[in-house]
Amino acid sequence: MANRWASNRTEAFSDGVFAIAITLLVLEISVPESSFDDLWSAILHEWPSYLGFATSFLTIGAIWLAHHGIFARMQYVDTRIMRLNLVLLLAVSFLPFPTKLVSESIRDSEAARVAVIFYGGSLLAISTLLGALWAAVASNPRIMRPDVREDEVRALLVAVTPNVGFYVAFLVLAIFAPRLAAFGFLAIAILLVLRARGDADLSPEPRE
Amino acid sequence: MANRWASNRTEAFSDGVFAIAITLLVLEISVPESSFDDLWSAILHEWPSYLGFATSFLTIGAIWLAHHGIFARMQYVDTRIMRLNLVLLLAVSFLPFPTKLVSESIRDSEAARVAVIFYGGSLLAISTLLGALWAAVASNPRIMRPDVREDEVRALLVAVTPNVGFYVAFLVLAIFAPRLAAFGFLAIAILLVLRARGDADLSPEPRE
Amino acid sequence: MANRWASNRTEAFSDGVFAIAITLLVLEISVPESSFDDLWSAILHEWPSYLGFATSFLTIGAIWLAHHGIFARMQYVDTRIMRLNLVLLLAVSFLPFPTKLVSESIRDSEAARVAVIFYGGSLLAISTLLGALWAAVASNPRIMRPDVREDEVRALLVAVTPNVGFYVAFLVLAIFAPRLAAFGFLAIAILLVLRARGDADLSPEPRE
Amino acid sequence: MANRWASNRTEAFSDGVFAIAITLLVLEISVPESSFDDLWSAILHEWPSYLGFATSFLTIGAIWLAHHGIFARMQYVDTRIMRLNLVLLLAVSFLPFPTKLVSESIRDSEAARVAVIFYGGSLLAISTLLGALWAAVASNPRIMRPDVREDEVRALLVAVTPNVGFYVAFLVLAIFAPRLAAFGFLAIAILLVLRARGDADLSPEPRE
Repeated sequence: MANRWASNRTEAFSDGVFAIAITLLVLEISVPESSFDDLWSAILHEWPSYLGFATSFLTIGAIWLAHHGIFARMQYVDTRIMRLNLVLLLAVSFLPFPTKLVSESIRDSEAARVAVIFYGGSLLAISTLLGALWAAVASNPRIMRPDVREDEVRALLVAVTPNVGFYVAFLVLAIFAPRLAAFGFLAIAILLVLRARGDADLSPEPRE
Repeated sequence: MANRWASNRTEAFSDGVFAIAITLLVLEISVPESSFDDLWSAILHEWPSYLGFATSFLTIGAIWLAHHGIFARMQYVDTRIMRLNLVLLLAVSFLPFPTKLVSESIRDSEAARVAVIFYGGSLLAISTLLGALWAAVASNPRIMRPDVREDEVRALLVAVTPNVGFYVAFLVLAIFAPRLAAFGFLAIAILLVLRARGDADLSPEPRE
Repeated sequence: MANRWASNRTEAFSDGVFAIAITLLVLEISVPESSFDDLWSAILHEWPSYLGFATSFLTIGAIWLAHHGIFARMQYVDTRIMRLNLVLLLAVSFLPFPTKLVSESIRDSEAARVAVIFYGGSLLAISTLLGALWAAVASNPRIMRPDVREDEVRALLVAVTPNVGFYVAFLVLAIFAPRLAAFGFLAIAILLVLRARGDADLSPEPRE
Repeated sequence: MANRWASNRTEAFSDGVFAIAITLLVLEISVPESSFDDLWSAILHEWPSYLGFATSFLTIGAIWLAHHGIFARMQYVDTRIMRLNLVLLLAVSFLPFPTKLVSESIRDSEAARVAVIFYGGSLLAISTLLGALWAAVASNPRIMRPDVREDEVRALLVAVTPNVGFYVAFLVLAIFAPRLAAFGFLAIAILLVLRARGDADLSPEPRE
């Protein structure tokens, strides 16, 4: 009993965490005043910060899109989904820390290897948690809205699985070529955003 | 007269404060560049920061779940509840400070004792304020939604009371074994999340 | 034409700014590791930070309550109100800076005088902007909801005016006794929260 | 298929990013304790920080107003608009970094030139992305709400185009007179706020 929550306040809270985690990333970017003599070079020299900012921003953006899609197909939130969602938010709000490590260490090849593996591991954890969240919804017909079609369920599961594969592949790559892998994570983030699917089939008249 | 507020905007504002307090915690975690030589060790060496991050994240998460449950049973917010809620938010948004103190001091056993007691006191204050908020709602039948059952009211009060007991017990433990108590606060946070109850009995068709 | 905005998205955006400004205040509080030998003293020594935190938190909380009350009495937002609201949000989101100055300088009586006057001036500006916002709503019968009564309008205007008076009085006091004035601003904030009125007369069935 | 999203959650997420980006700007403002001897001078000496704060706050505020106006005229969000919106949010949440550079470098005429051009370039990018977002909506009659009139569409496009022109003009000016251009960007921001149009023609009874 009493093991259901209305999904709208959970959505609002999750959106808040996503929006803040995505926006805090910029606080780590700065140029020391000592390099103001040649500020263009100093700004360009910060490229690892921009790489980290863009990768984490787009990854969290794609996670938000997928989260949006999952919640649009739910009728209510049960205890297991609430807990999974909380752990997913914990992992997302932790991401600024490994992002900062990658940006700071990328010029030092030994430290970069560690930082990129740590960062990739965090992305893999987030991706796995998102897959688990969707699997928990998909496995419970009472949670899903009655108008969600079989093929949508399969399509979303298929969309999540290869991401996990991508992250594992780039994690292995990071052992040998950490910088290449760092750019690889940006490529995955762009791919995730480009592949995001809407939720319109469920709400033909989204707003009036 | 004019001593009522609609509860939805209060919920939205509270959710904002919870989401931000939970996400700011990561800003305190960092690794000095001087330890990039052996970054794995340096990352592991930051375990007190992860302990503080996870404990405060899950505690605030559990508070949010309980807050959600309380507001779902309210018809409107009166003056006393509005004030109690504001003081609860003040205590929650203060939490990143004692969290940082615990993370920074845990290797120094004398300072750790002080920091863990200060942290535990903050958690106890938050827990007590949450209990007071629920007691204020439960004692006023006109505020509660008419469909809230007697046993739900008792169940929620019972759920809040032992938390206060747990915090007092671990506060005493902190005098003798501060590090053990620090892990104890993580255990309480996990327990609070696992014990959280939904609000579905009140809204059988949460969304359409 | 096209000089109206729906008030709900303006409310949501304002709530976001209030919630963030209120929560960021904690980031300024810290204890240097060099004083970990006697951490209780070091924690107590930070009292100016707690004073600043509590004063600004409760002031922004009271502003939020008054803002809530004003928007609950509006039918829509017009161009003038939108601009006034934006300037009010600018002043609120600036507040963490003078708050920090007061906390840092309160032990240095000469600097404290300047900081407390600067802080009080910021509070006065916020209070004046809030009064201007309400005056802009009250002076336009087409913006106010038709069920707002004359005496409510007067009561809200009266509630705003003496605040401005309080701030001016404590600003003058700050020239002679800055620390006393700093505590005076906390007293005003508590008074503002205690005096806040709800909006129930306008929405007898706030939620169903 | 499934290439539509409900616009309300996208709005809420965007509002969160705008509100946070606008509020984080204050964290960069501070006065070194060494200049507490003459705190009035030190506070005045921070004028470049206030200039940057006000310019970026009002620019993001104006972007939010325009964003609000665009979303009020949409029925749903399609894939292209979702991506454009995400890139716009990325650019907005990046803005605190160039803002900080301008504030820090404005007293050093060589560094100021670079910083102001970099800042102006960021503003130009945001303005262009906003124009592209509106063009994407305006070019798709199925996305726009059926009650949006031809002249509204043209008015909004016209409103966006000269902004891009202003930014280009002040970027050129920044090469010769960076400080003047910095004040120019503030003037543009004020103009954008003053010129913002509401969305009432679309919702004659905005709230009941």
